[in-house]
Amino acid sequence: MSATQGKATNIHWHEGDLTRDERWGALKCTGGTMWFTGLSASGKSTIASALEQVLVQDGVNCYRLDGDNVRHGLNKNLGFSAEDRAENIRRIGEVAKLFSDNGTVALTSFISPYSADRDDCRKMHDDAGLAFIEVFVDTPLDICEERDPKGLYKKARAGEIKGFTGIDDPYEAPAKAELVLKPGVDSLERCVEQCIDMLRERGLIKG
Amino acid sequence: MSATQGKATNIHWHEGDLTRDERWGALKCTGGTMWFTGLSASGKSTIASALEQVLVQDGVNCYRLDGDNVRHGLNKNLGFSAEDRAENIRRIGEVAKLFSDNGTVALTSFISPYSADRDDCRKMHDDAGLAFIEVFVDTPLDICEERDPKGLYKKARAGEIKGFTGIDDPYEAPAKAELVLKPGVDSLERCVEQCIDMLRERGLIKG
Repeated sequence: MSATQGKATNIHWHEGDLTRDERWGALKCTGGTMWFTGLSASGKSTIASALEQVLVQDGVNCYRLDGDNVRHGLNKNLGFSAEDRAENIRRIGEVAKLFSDNGTVALTSFISPYSADRDDCRKMHDDAGLAFIEVFVDTPLDICEERDPKGLYKKARAGEIKGFTGIDDPYEAPAKAELVLKPGVDSLERCVEQCIDMLRERGLIKG
Repeated sequence: MSATQGKATNIHWHEGDLTRDERWGALKCTGGTMWFTGLSASGKSTIASALEQVLVQDGVNCYRLDGDNVRHGLNKNLGFSAEDRAENIRRIGEVAKLFSDNGTVALTSFISPYSADRDDCRKMHDDAGLAFIEVFVDTPLDICEERDPKGLYKKARAGEIKGFTGIDDPYEAPAKAELVLKPGVDSLERCVEQCIDMLRERGLIKG
């Protein structure tokens, strides 16, 4: 710390708030959001989790927002109505924007099936001058359904879950994703590499 | 980057997600939330803004949540009913928790007048094993009202704003705040120093 007890003269600040440039310059970071979208069991979280590990172990502040830390916390008062689904994605977009502004590489890993909702998140980043990189995890439905790690597709087919994306609710594939990953074809390693190359290309990471 | 294009063998990760210890260890940081509470114009944002500048300039990842970046974004769909005020604080608490988990020193600067709402935020941090440091910015009402930088007290006294904290809505002072600041008595420099000492004591910053 430059500010130490009893040495008040070492504490410096200016009028007004810290600017983003000052923050990113001091912390040597560049924030932005990498938004993973795709069907349930398409591999979004597996890729995002591996990417997060690689980046953090390399000293890049990267943070993943997913069902585990959002659905049971910030968005625990939301259900699965059309309105609540849109609000779910809106809040995730806003939080990713805050993390981006902070200088974090924010990774969001949600089905986020509707183009309009994703476009709203893109716009809020654009308006704030922050990078928004849409990554379509393009695993075909039949492969996702075959994997079915949580048995959700089976339940949806049996009618036990209503409004399940890909079964009785639409998935609108991105028309202009910055990156399309095919984990059914490429290895996990290759998918992570493609993300890293894209982050490098967009200047979010160096080297 | 340890992972470079065409050198897939340099990309390493393990099954399961990155743990908090791994994250904080790799990024050399310790997250936690410093929650500023006090009347409008008590000096919360001035202190938090100066503290943020000092910490970030010293390389500490510190991020401030306040009306500017929350009310117009994440919480723009909330009004000022009792229910919406509680939801406002709940969402801020959840986002501060995410930033803390990320390893950030999160500073929240909101009137947050109700003890129950603040206690809920404390509990969600406790449950997640994250530090929650409540800072009561204890500026007497008459001084806040005299400052009145946005003319809000004047409007509240004139009945043009209803439900204004301190005038026709209660402010419940914290009974067990970790830190009580008196910006009416102490200098801004001294208030920032006290915050830094507390962060050091709680292990959120080193040195």
